[in-house]
Amino acid sequence: MDIAVLAGVGLALFMVLFGIISGGGDFAAFINIPSLFIVIGGSIGATIAANPKDIGFKIVQISLEALKEPKIDYINLLRTLVSLSEKARREGLLSLEENIEQIDDPFMKKAIQLVVDGTEPELLKSMLQIEIDVMNSEMSLKRGLFESLGAYAPAFGMIGTLIGLIQMLKSLNDPNSLGPSMAVALITTMYGSIIANAAALPLAEKIGKRMINLEMEKTMIVEGVLSIQAGENPRILEEKLKAFLPANLREQYEAATQEATA
Amino acid sequence: MDIAVLAGVGLALFMVLFGIISGGGDFAAFINIPSLFIVIGGSIGATIAANPKDIGFKIVQISLEALKEPKIDYINLLRTLVSLSEKARREGLLSLEENIEQIDDPFMKKAIQLVVDGTEPELLKSMLQIEIDVMNSEMSLKRGLFESLGAYAPAFGMIGTLIGLIQMLKSLNDPNSLGPSMAVALITTMYGSIIANAAALPLAEKIGKRMINLEMEKTMIVEGVLSIQAGENPRILEEKLKAFLPANLREQYEAATQEATA
Amino acid sequence: MDIAVLAGVGLALFMVLFGIISGGGDFAAFINIPSLFIVIGGSIGATIAANPKDIGFKIVQISLEALKEPKIDYINLLRTLVSLSEKARREGLLSLEENIEQIDDPFMKKAIQLVVDGTEPELLKSMLQIEIDVMNSEMSLKRGLFESLGAYAPAFGMIGTLIGLIQMLKSLNDPNSLGPSMAVALITTMYGSIIANAAALPLAEKIGKRMINLEMEKTMIVEGVLSIQAGENPRILEEKLKAFLPANLREQYEAATQEATA
Amino acid sequence: MDIAVLAGVGLALFMVLFGIISGGGDFAAFINIPSLFIVIGGSIGATIAANPKDIGFKIVQISLEALKEPKIDYINLLRTLVSLSEKARREGLLSLEENIEQIDDPFMKKAIQLVVDGTEPELLKSMLQIEIDVMNSEMSLKRGLFESLGAYAPAFGMIGTLIGLIQMLKSLNDPNSLGPSMAVALITTMYGSIIANAAALPLAEKIGKRMINLEMEKTMIVEGVLSIQAGENPRILEEKLKAFLPANLREQYEAATQEATA
Amino acid sequence: MDIAVLAGVGLALFMVLFGIISGGGDFAAFINIPSLFIVIGGSIGATIAANPKDIGFKIVQISLEALKEPKIDYINLLRTLVSLSEKARREGLLSLEENIEQIDDPFMKKAIQLVVDGTEPELLKSMLQIEIDVMNSEMSLKRGLFESLGAYAPAFGMIGTLIGLIQMLKSLNDPNSLGPSMAVALITTMYGSIIANAAALPLAEKIGKRMINLEMEKTMIVEGVLSIQAGENPRILEEKLKAFLPANLREQYEAATQEATA
Repeated sequence: MDIAVLAGVGLALFMVLFGIISGGGDFAAFINIPSLFIVIGGSIGATIAANPKDIGFKIVQISLEALKEPKIDYINLLRTLVSLSEKARREGLLSLEENIEQIDDPFMKKAIQLVVDGTEPELLKSMLQIEIDVMNSEMSLKRGLFESLGAYAPAFGMIGTLIGLIQMLKSLNDPNSLGPSMAVALITTMYGSIIANAAALPLAEKIGKRMINLEMEKTMIVEGVLSIQAGENPRILEEKLKAFLPANLREQYEAATQEATA
Repeated sequence: MDIAVLAGVGLALFMVLFGIISGGGDFAAFINIPSLFIVIGGSIGATIAANPKDIGFKIVQISLEALKEPKIDYINLLRTLVSLSEKARREGLLSLEENIEQIDDPFMKKAIQLVVDGTEPELLKSMLQIEIDVMNSEMSLKRGLFESLGAYAPAFGMIGTLIGLIQMLKSLNDPNSLGPSMAVALITTMYGSIIANAAALPLAEKIGKRMINLEMEKTMIVEGVLSIQAGENPRILEEKLKAFLPANLREQYEAATQEATA
Repeated sequence: MDIAVLAGVGLALFMVLFGIISGGGDFAAFINIPSLFIVIGGSIGATIAANPKDIGFKIVQISLEALKEPKIDYINLLRTLVSLSEKARREGLLSLEENIEQIDDPFMKKAIQLVVDGTEPELLKSMLQIEIDVMNSEMSLKRGLFESLGAYAPAFGMIGTLIGLIQMLKSLNDPNSLGPSMAVALITTMYGSIIANAAALPLAEKIGKRMINLEMEKTMIVEGVLSIQAGENPRILEEKLKAFLPANLREQYEAATQEATA
Repeated sequence: MDIAVLAGVGLALFMVLFGIISGGGDFAAFINIPSLFIVIGGSIGATIAANPKDIGFKIVQISLEALKEPKIDYINLLRTLVSLSEKARREGLLSLEENIEQIDDPFMKKAIQLVVDGTEPELLKSMLQIEIDVMNSEMSLKRGLFESLGAYAPAFGMIGTLIGLIQMLKSLNDPNSLGPSMAVALITTMYGSIIANAAALPLAEKIGKRMINLEMEKTMIVEGVLSIQAGENPRILEEKLKAFLPANLREQYEAATQEATA
Repeated sequence: MDIAVLAGVGLALFMVLFGIISGGGDFAAFINIPSLFIVIGGSIGATIAANPKDIGFKIVQISLEALKEPKIDYINLLRTLVSLSEKARREGLLSLEENIEQIDDPFMKKAIQLVVDGTEPELLKSMLQIEIDVMNSEMSLKRGLFESLGAYAPAFGMIGTLIGLIQMLKSLNDPNSLGPSMAVALITTMYGSIIANAAALPLAEKIGKRMINLEMEKTMIVEGVLSIQAGENPRILEEKLKAFLPANLREQYEAATQEATA
């Protein structure tokens, strides 16, 4: 579970509730089933039309998936690559075959398998790059789903409000109904804005930022595996990969390594 | 037919109808022929002016075309390339001439024809790249058509509403006509917003995402054909192209292949 | 004349007129000379300030130029390049000097002249590329002019409406004048929106799309001329350049060629 | 002085005045000192916070500088480079030392000095490129200043209007003061919009377009100086640099050259 | 402390206060605790959801950090690199080990350490580039935090205003409460707009512009260190790095150098 998504969306929605409560707490005034249908139905319809068939129809499944955070353990990754490098120097590249089973990350697993199979460096590099591109393109299709939703929800909110206003204005003879009718019309805009700003757009941004991190991790693995294949010194490999770590993780890694060697 | 476009646009429009019905169902209040003319005529006019002549005037034909989904069968594509690669290794590049007839995809057909004709690898690559660029540029002209429509429809909706408001405000002497006149003025904005958000913008997005997929497919074919021409091992070709498949298709392909060899 | 610009802008403006007529046809209500001055003067002023001196002051001349469509005849271009290639193979590069006179396109004229003068391939390529860059940069300055106008016209429309509203609100004592005053205030916004959406923005888009087509055409010429200079086989040149043609033109070219050889 | 900026901004502001005069000319209704303070103070504050210290605090000085137009005389530049090239061919690169004094442009001065000093071509090229990058980065910081101002002025205009509306609505008991209070509230939005659209945004655009021209000029100098250093034929240099000139300047240059040689 | 941020944000906020005071100074009318909660809570919630966990939860800490200005002393940097270059030429690369302690900048420290360790030029360059990329990616995550806040604050401001309007319109029976209720509803929009325009967006811009400067500085160090490693002439190094200085710093540096050598 990505605790930041849950906590953030939860906090944002709670604040909306708090606004309603602090204004008198008349919840009924904020619930309007047709408005909900127009906004959710309309924006999901437009989102399905705008996205590839196999992505658009799985909108609920992808939303649930987006709540899971891909775990990236840079320190462990660096340690694994250094130890594989050391083993390869001592016992040869073929000896890495024994370690493939223990590798969790499927991308790294495949990369090491290709090294053991004796794939040419150029081919290895281009195959791993294609994998990264395909991963990026799948994630950006998922991000596109939430971007669509975040754009169409306010639009259908406004369409719903226009429908409500037109209905209200057509029958303006009863001035007492003016206020409540207008309130109902505005609810649709509010729903659209909440869906976009408290859920769809933050999720789209989050997926975009995960993409950057995952690409960084994969690039680190590619650098490491190519260095192992080339038989580079494990110390140089370590130095090179440490450059990928942000300052705090680097200190953490160095502390842990010193402890281990002490 | 692209079922996602039909279902999505259908759902979005149904939700708008539902909003009208649930508010009393006075359909007549939402129909205003002059408003429809201003929005549709104005935005189609601006779209025609903004786009190349041969694209702009075919706006209806291109809309119908956009409902068709280009079918990309990655698994079949991979299988065809692998089997062509095996044949070329066994019987020589010239033997592929017999297979050209059976290839459906015109891009792949042309690529194999060029290989059989003995085109230099560099020239082959640059000719296929030009084809991809021309395809992309044609598709992005089509996408541009719907982007124009999606931008001008709300703009002419607003222009129509301003016309209605000015007419209403000029003759404010009858307070009873105020409401209905304003309702009519707002209908134009509503039409513009529906055209943009339930049709034009989703179609523009959809074409953009199709472009990404088609370019991926063509890149896969180029990689495959160059590998065949270079006489690479069919197993390496297979591994390389499998990297293009998203995870679920890769499993499907492997399952199918295992079955076939079992 | 670019018939699409004329027809499109004409249709869009007609629809605005139609909206006014269908609402009663009180044209006088929509004409306000000061509003017209504020929007046109203000947005032209800002556009002149935002653009290079020699471009900004020629705004009318450039608008008229933008109505002319640059004619690109791909088929004729391809045929000319192929026949020049055949002649160069038969009679040598110097023999092309006789043909320079008959070439219409000044870019191609210059390119062939450079080939006849014996310019080095590298220098030839970089000189032609600079010409393309300069052409692109001139066109994007022109596009920028209409983009400025399309952005400042609605802004000055809103400024005019604010001026009108402030004047109206200052002297609110006569409730009967409220409506007409507000109508006048809104006219400025309407003018700004019409100028932007029925003229300036479509023209800016159009120039942008012409740029793409012209760059494609120039790239085709560069490819062709370099191939002629290198003494490549005219059949290969033909195949290469055919890749630039969209599907419908390619068929047309092939039909015409078959006819000629039959 | 950049006459286009003065004339353009002057025209835009005059149109605003004209709008006020034509609506009755009650200037007092459009002057509100606190509104002016909120918009100018607020947007300058945000602009200072958003920009580097040494840029932000010099906002007035940079505005005055932006009124000066950098003069680019392409024809003179081309002529100077050709004559330096001829001299270098006749008397050697060292002889250019005598001409350095007469060169106005500091960039070209430095480039020729480096050539005379015997700088390696690779190093020369990379040093000149760094100069261009630094110039671009300084200019885009200046452009950024006006972009910030153009974005924050309307925002603080709206904040000022919201303050005015809240004050008005709190004390709604006197209906007669409603109109004038609302007029005052709207003045702030008007000020923000005028500052952005009649001054800040056009200046930002202008600087951006000057950047493109200056980069083109510097690129032309780099090409010329590298060609001089390589001892290329002055005629080739001339042809190469003429490609940088837009069509009208090229004719002007050719006419002037013919006259000189006649 | 970054005095420009403090002064700028201070000025902007003071102007808002001034607007309230000049309108009568009824501060109570502008304070509404629930509104504050909705805007701050809602936008922080959405920002946390949209950003990586370890960044989002440290929003306060990162805001405080953003007030510190990274000090870049180009002149000192240039002087240090030149003197290291001179020493390396006289006493060899290994002699630089003694100077490492005195270097403040951790990036330059690491670079010199790598040179002393005898790292290959290619590896050195790629390791330093990775460090720059990681630094950029960390800073752009921080910028992203304030961009999120700047986008969500006005959105939740609008949501709060919609809640207020709906509550007001539902109970429209007391016309006297209309004004004050609407005032309260508008406060939320005002808060959102102030948070975005007087704090979040300027900070996001500022971080973006710092990134450009820091990257320039790091690039200068990389150029310098590679030149030292290659044993280039310190005078050439000095000339090369002087190209990075903006005009005013270059004069300052030359004046200071002349003084020192006089």
